[in-house]
Amino acid sequence: MQITSVLRRAAQVNPTGTATIFADRQQSWTTLLDRVARLAGALQKLGMTEGDRVALLSLNSDRFIEYFFATVWGGGAMMPMNIRWAPAECVYALNDAGAKILLVDDAFQAVGAEIKAQVPGLETLVFCGDGETPDGMLNYEDILAVADPVPDAGRSGDDLAGIFYTGGTTGFPKGVMLSHTNFYVGGVANAHELMIRDGTIYLHAAPMFHIADLLWFMAITFVAGTHVAIPAFTPDATLQAVQAHRPSHLLLVPVMLQMVLQSPKLDETDTSSLELIAYGASPITEGVLREAFDRFPNVEFLQAFGQTELSPVATILAPDYHVFEGKKAGKLRSAGRPTRVCEIMIADDDMTELPRGEIGNICVKGPICMLGYWNKPEVTAETLRDGWVITGDAGYMDDEGFVFLMDRVKDMVISGGENVYSAEVENALSQHPAVATSAVIGIPSDQWGESVHAIVILHPEAKATPEELMAHCHTVIAGYKCPRSVEFRTDPFPLSGANKVLKTELRKPFWDGRDRQIS
Amino acid sequence: MQITSVLRRAAQVNPTGTATIFADRQQSWTTLLDRVARLAGALQKLGMTEGDRVALLSLNSDRFIEYFFATVWGGGAMMPMNIRWAPAECVYALNDAGAKILLVDDAFQAVGAEIKAQVPGLETLVFCGDGETPDGMLNYEDILAVADPVPDAGRSGDDLAGIFYTGGTTGFPKGVMLSHTNFYVGGVANAHELMIRDGTIYLHAAPMFHIADLLWFMAITFVAGTHVAIPAFTPDATLQAVQAHRPSHLLLVPVMLQMVLQSPKLDETDTSSLELIAYGASPITEGVLREAFDRFPNVEFLQAFGQTELSPVATILAPDYHVFEGKKAGKLRSAGRPTRVCEIMIADDDMTELPRGEIGNICVKGPICMLGYWNKPEVTAETLRDGWVITGDAGYMDDEGFVFLMDRVKDMVISGGENVYSAEVENALSQHPAVATSAVIGIPSDQWGESVHAIVILHPEAKATPEELMAHCHTVIAGYKCPRSVEFRTDPFPLSGANKVLKTELRKPFWDGRDRQIS
Repeated sequence: MQITSVLRRAAQVNPTGTATIFADRQQSWTTLLDRVARLAGALQKLGMTEGDRVALLSLNSDRFIEYFFATVWGGGAMMPMNIRWAPAECVYALNDAGAKILLVDDAFQAVGAEIKAQVPGLETLVFCGDGETPDGMLNYEDILAVADPVPDAGRSGDDLAGIFYTGGTTGFPKGVMLSHTNFYVGGVANAHELMIRDGTIYLHAAPMFHIADLLWFMAITFVAGTHVAIPAFTPDATLQAVQAHRPSHLLLVPVMLQMVLQSPKLDETDTSSLELIAYGASPITEGVLREAFDRFPNVEFLQAFGQTELSPVATILAPDYHVFEGKKAGKLRSAGRPTRVCEIMIADDDMTELPRGEIGNICVKGPICMLGYWNKPEVTAETLRDGWVITGDAGYMDDEGFVFLMDRVKDMVISGGENVYSAEVENALSQHPAVATSAVIGIPSDQWGESVHAIVILHPEAKATPEELMAHCHTVIAGYKCPRSVEFRTDPFPLSGANKVLKTELRKPFWDGRDRQIS
Repeated sequence: MQITSVLRRAAQVNPTGTATIFADRQQSWTTLLDRVARLAGALQKLGMTEGDRVALLSLNSDRFIEYFFATVWGGGAMMPMNIRWAPAECVYALNDAGAKILLVDDAFQAVGAEIKAQVPGLETLVFCGDGETPDGMLNYEDILAVADPVPDAGRSGDDLAGIFYTGGTTGFPKGVMLSHTNFYVGGVANAHELMIRDGTIYLHAAPMFHIADLLWFMAITFVAGTHVAIPAFTPDATLQAVQAHRPSHLLLVPVMLQMVLQSPKLDETDTSSLELIAYGASPITEGVLREAFDRFPNVEFLQAFGQTELSPVATILAPDYHVFEGKKAGKLRSAGRPTRVCEIMIADDDMTELPRGEIGNICVKGPICMLGYWNKPEVTAETLRDGWVITGDAGYMDDEGFVFLMDRVKDMVISGGENVYSAEVENALSQHPAVATSAVIGIPSDQWGESVHAIVILHPEAKATPEELMAHCHTVIAGYKCPRSVEFRTDPFPLSGANKVLKTELRKPFWDGRDRQIS
């Protein structure tokens, strides 16, 4: 199984079809194939050999897609970096991975130069933007123009295809190693479950560095469809691209979907090409979903849940379960069922499967499971047991195979020996009309070990007291799960690169100087 | 990648859904999973250890499906045998593969007993039919009833999953070794391209031993659909099952499709559940297709081409190319385009890729390529080169990636140094109104090496002379391709188990005592 074989096939079955559209550029599958084989040659000339890591720090573009295929075509491994990282995080990851080459675009040229000084192994910077090439960098188009196409280096199967740094919510980034097989099997299975067909047009509105968008590189190439890209998500740029290029498929994380729904441009945009909007990577509220269903009555919605370690999709909630009434209602709060290339087990800490309905660690097995963490054999051994990836998410499975997420295991509040899942408490709070959003954390309690603390953002103009909210929760969930304390804030919550609330950050002031047992 | 993981997932997401329907039996995915784990235990008790071959000679049944999963669950390898074989061929294959256990049903109990005497390594016969258990055989349900479910033996990836004897058209059977990965990737990709969705109901009307039907074991299990089986194809049994169980998907080889179309029962059968009829394994005439389109206006038709060595699908002609008019017309004579998990190369004898439009060897690469031939390293080395399976079929690829089959390389006529593809000549003959079907072969010629000879079956009541047919061909194809001699016959052509015309048989009387260079 080779990532690049999918590209060759796409160029064989749809040679003149449009492969990528970006800004005022577009190219056919034949051209993309040729440029990839030449970029691979250029990277080899720059010293990329077997398994070498080539990093990229860039907004979305057609060149991102070329980079994806060219690194592995030439025998290297890709390493797309989180565009929200501070330079120090980039430096850490580049040193950890031992990357020799880094590509940066216009948005990151300054950061690139700053980083280089602190990464001794980094030999070459390539500028893949459209502006003036900065001093000390090679120009992407220049090196491509003089390079010869090279034969595929032939890496495949369990060979390393890329390192994807993750760990936004839980401290130091870890490099997830994914293989050719991970991408290949994940891609071919996702293409089916995402209802993609020959020639599907997909809009890369979410950041490409994030594996939730990156998976579409494979899925769309498997059907020789069209990749449309905008540099970065804004509701207006997204809507403009939808109108101009008529994509049928779109991935949005919930906060993006919400912004699109609130955009004043929405009503004047022709969105009739849209057939499916996939969402995931963070929880969505019923309110956003209802609004989305109303606004896009002809669009199917699909939820995907997973993590980088799973390449990344583990469960899918199919469009037919996106209903509030009827036989299939009641699953909308779940993350869906295992994809066709996953087995899922809810296990206790000894890896013993729990009965249906009991909450435990969500564990996933299948050809989409990562090779391990780069340079971290101990963490790898903790996370990958007997072929199972222990996701670190707590949840249960119902009798029909639907997985209900309760919490990150590390974000669970253990109060008086009882496990309290913050998602459940946040859910209860969200049913109060004044609450816009909330984050529930465990804070130290001499009596209970931890006690349930809620940080709440109210709707503009709305009013509520802590007592009112606590009383409301008592009408919805068991007493031991209800917040013992409530604070209000107006600033948005700190978010990870994947738009997850950084609960470590929220907990910090409370735990300063103390050890939290699960941290 | 594990064949059995797909079964476990199916039981997880659709536990109470119907997995198999056969005669008056039906069972849920939960029951099937349990029976498979117990049958695996029973086979282990009978001595099946790591990689051991367990053969089966049986008509279609639900137990065939249990056998498929249980052999690999228990760590063995399956070996379903061609039900059209003579006992001598079965004996050859069983001895070649070293099978220790053989399952036989009612239809093959006598043959089973006969075979056993000639296969010294064969220790156990299991009777998987519904009649009285013959002497000297164990009963399938009895051994299952007393067996405990065993844990999955854990074989996966490149481990041998089964041996599939093939070679009907070219002499001695060869055992094609297929792996867990072959079935897994083939299944997940086919499920998408065969337009299968969650819960699809498939009717096993074609013989299960044939890999063209066997691939649906995986594809339907990937979507936790329903397997409906009839013991053996007859048009009436097929139509009856369509009406009773309302399958949406059906695979028929062309001769079966023709028989269904000619059945007097067709008009009184409710076929409204049918959505897709897949066909393949042998050429189809335009006449049959036109009749099928007329009769099933709401059904999609899809052609698959491949061979056992490719697990088995290499190309698919999608439903939208099943048209005689419009932009997509003109592809109907092709075998379609490479599936999403194949690369195809048309190569000369040195494995150099030929330009589009030139005829050469069709070579296929991808995770569906066999491990090799059992016990035949030389033939394996000839067939598998640098990861490419050399199919032995001659053909060309057009500019849009469609593959046009010309001939089995071995059935090509080499006349005066020119290659003549029998398919092209047969095609020309079929356009004469009197011709029902024809087979074109090369016969010895002192002048040309070989000369083109046509054996023709006329429509009942129709009349034509050899001269007329030869003259007709001259109006359609180049002179050197036209038959130099024509003979008429009324008996049907000898067919292989896969319904291919056995041209070796037809050539035999002409070549008796002579060497044919390509044979």
